[in-house]
Amino acid sequence: MKSDEQWSSKGRLNAMHRRKFITAASLAAAGLTAGCGKGKPGAEKELPSEVGAKLSAYGERSKYDTAKRLVPELKRPEIGSSTTPLADTEGIITPASLHFERHHAGVPQIDPATHTLLIHGLVDRPTVYTIDELKRLPSESHIYFVECSGNSGREWKAPGAGDVQKGFGLASCSEWTGVPVRLLLEEAGLQKGSKWLLAEGADACKLFRSLPLDKVLKDGLVAYAQNGEPIRPSQGYPVRLIVPGYEGNANIKWLRQLKVVDQPYMAKDETSKYTDLMPDGKARQFTLEMDAKSVITHPSGGRKLVGPGFYEIRGLAWTGRGRIEKVEVSVDGGNTWKPAQLQEPRLAMAFTRFRMLWEWDGNEVQIMSRAVDESGYVQPSREELTEARGLNSNYHYNGTKAWRIAADGEVHSV
Amino acid sequence: MKSDEQWSSKGRLNAMHRRKFITAASLAAAGLTAGCGKGKPGAEKELPSEVGAKLSAYGERSKYDTAKRLVPELKRPEIGSSTTPLADTEGIITPASLHFERHHAGVPQIDPATHTLLIHGLVDRPTVYTIDELKRLPSESHIYFVECSGNSGREWKAPGAGDVQKGFGLASCSEWTGVPVRLLLEEAGLQKGSKWLLAEGADACKLFRSLPLDKVLKDGLVAYAQNGEPIRPSQGYPVRLIVPGYEGNANIKWLRQLKVVDQPYMAKDETSKYTDLMPDGKARQFTLEMDAKSVITHPSGGRKLVGPGFYEIRGLAWTGRGRIEKVEVSVDGGNTWKPAQLQEPRLAMAFTRFRMLWEWDGNEVQIMSRAVDESGYVQPSREELTEARGLNSNYHYNGTKAWRIAADGEVHSV
Repeated sequence: MKSDEQWSSKGRLNAMHRRKFITAASLAAAGLTAGCGKGKPGAEKELPSEVGAKLSAYGERSKYDTAKRLVPELKRPEIGSSTTPLADTEGIITPASLHFERHHAGVPQIDPATHTLLIHGLVDRPTVYTIDELKRLPSESHIYFVECSGNSGREWKAPGAGDVQKGFGLASCSEWTGVPVRLLLEEAGLQKGSKWLLAEGADACKLFRSLPLDKVLKDGLVAYAQNGEPIRPSQGYPVRLIVPGYEGNANIKWLRQLKVVDQPYMAKDETSKYTDLMPDGKARQFTLEMDAKSVITHPSGGRKLVGPGFYEIRGLAWTGRGRIEKVEVSVDGGNTWKPAQLQEPRLAMAFTRFRMLWEWDGNEVQIMSRAVDESGYVQPSREELTEARGLNSNYHYNGTKAWRIAADGEVHSV
Repeated sequence: MKSDEQWSSKGRLNAMHRRKFITAASLAAAGLTAGCGKGKPGAEKELPSEVGAKLSAYGERSKYDTAKRLVPELKRPEIGSSTTPLADTEGIITPASLHFERHHAGVPQIDPATHTLLIHGLVDRPTVYTIDELKRLPSESHIYFVECSGNSGREWKAPGAGDVQKGFGLASCSEWTGVPVRLLLEEAGLQKGSKWLLAEGADACKLFRSLPLDKVLKDGLVAYAQNGEPIRPSQGYPVRLIVPGYEGNANIKWLRQLKVVDQPYMAKDETSKYTDLMPDGKARQFTLEMDAKSVITHPSGGRKLVGPGFYEIRGLAWTGRGRIEKVEVSVDGGNTWKPAQLQEPRLAMAFTRFRMLWEWDGNEVQIMSRAVDESGYVQPSREELTEARGLNSNYHYNGTKAWRIAADGEVHSV
């Protein structure tokens, strides 16, 4: 993508910072022409004259960078979720320190020297792997999003609350490295009748889920690394399951066993929780594949535009069905839509960054985005979504999201 | 890439952990069959019964993950370089905390509210941008490596010392987001005679380099984000130049000005330093484009194999000329070579992760890798490289690297 394809006429930035164009004379007066082969600088009061901080074994952020996961008030501070500050992120990689959390029994502190992964059930050769053994096996690396199916859940009943972190921050994207589940199961020898896979974590609640074996054989990963380093404890150290495109809960953290079975086992988190109650009183179950979704992250709720002029609208789109094919953006409340630029490479089951240059005239306006994935699925409006599913659901909200920009530049959730 | 393409016969892992296959009876005896819909677990002493750590605003590593940048003894701890622990990394993303450092005057602590970028020289409209203004402009994100041209420098005169961190750790790879330099310069209006660009940092030494304008117009980036978050201070906060594929020194950190000029300005770091002295006493200068290079990271010097059996050989390859086209691996000291698997997507000017499954018979052996890039350039052997360049150089060493695995499993640098 060339980000300035739509930026062909030179000097257009003038509209944005019309008072910033300066003359050589004013530069000299401000002491700004110094340096770069011109000998001793002039009056450059703001520049350091002393050497800065020393080298370090493990880098830290700038003290001016204060983005944080939002940890809500919780009855038990170990059980709940924290959200990624999406309005403060760029590109598609989420730093591990800011990857969202959803814990059902806190974060266990696991010694990788003693942790094991058990493969058993309908297999010929039940097997136990240590972490060191897993790391010797053929590996793959993929950039995948993980999204909690409860992400944007508040939008079902109370749209318009919060900002992009509160409303969409249960989604993050990392480069995961690990062993294909297929390799482990083929090695163990799948038996006749193998249809489902139970995956269980080593947290105190031993959270487990039933997963369709075909899907996990296709692209499931027993991951031990995230963004180049060992997975963080809050993301499943030392080893987690990654089922690309499936709801977060299925990507079992602190993975301790995979059991091949003939049918789903109706775990707590696939019966009383993580099901979708329909208007007719029946529930959708095993709605594991995440639907296409998008959200504008810049500008977004709680932020403020400094004034009329050019802005780049930026956002994220993702889908559990493969690649994002198109993202459309409306800057008139949904009346008209234009295709946004999509950052390449567009990777299957990864965040896709979209962008659109926009000139704000200073009048109140609503901006919104709509994703289309490679299966042809189009992200629904809130009306389309609630007409199909009613208002009883807690999970899998993926309606289009509008931000209202007031005349004073303040951005509000709609 | 399907990592198990070369792994078609089931049960081959037996060679690796032949004593690990277990029976259902032994599982039950070990208390390992519990959980997953089977009611109350048996004797699972190692599993937590209490909830773990609470949610947190900013995640930390496991206490068991102790990988660090190597900071050597320095006359001044602010001036020098620290290296990425490549043997402890997976995939292609380097965590920002572990990205190598090379500082000439320490790390300045810069307030983004007061820092500015000046565009001037042979332009119609000299311009000053604040960081907030830069962030409003059309942006791009790309995964690019940055490599210090001094990486592997010790190999010129003393091959065989150190490990992969000491010898190759002045290379890292991140997702960078920022504004194309082309956009800023076209906006300023390039004047006739514009041929070179001076880029200067805001560190105490005001490090600057002369760069060919054509290259920077093609894909140079004024970057403000790294791996999704603001660039870390040690990588140039709040804004740095990224010139993909060019030696690290050209990617000016803490960028404060870009000046368009008609010729190179012969900075300290392109005359007394960062030039390559040839056998005839002349020096190569402005050798900015990094040549293709590769190194095996697993197994690598200083590590130890636990015994004969299957291992996955893993490494990294990169080139300043675009994509890596092929990586070949030899497990017999360079007599025969086989193509390694390359992780997709292979991105231009990014690390490419390569892998090859290998069965070690327990005899002493030398393993090595050789990269070929899309321009057809083949990474040279040490002999080929030193024959062409002599032994006076300090920079741009990219000869193939062998690790010797002794019969006891210990891995040594050759």
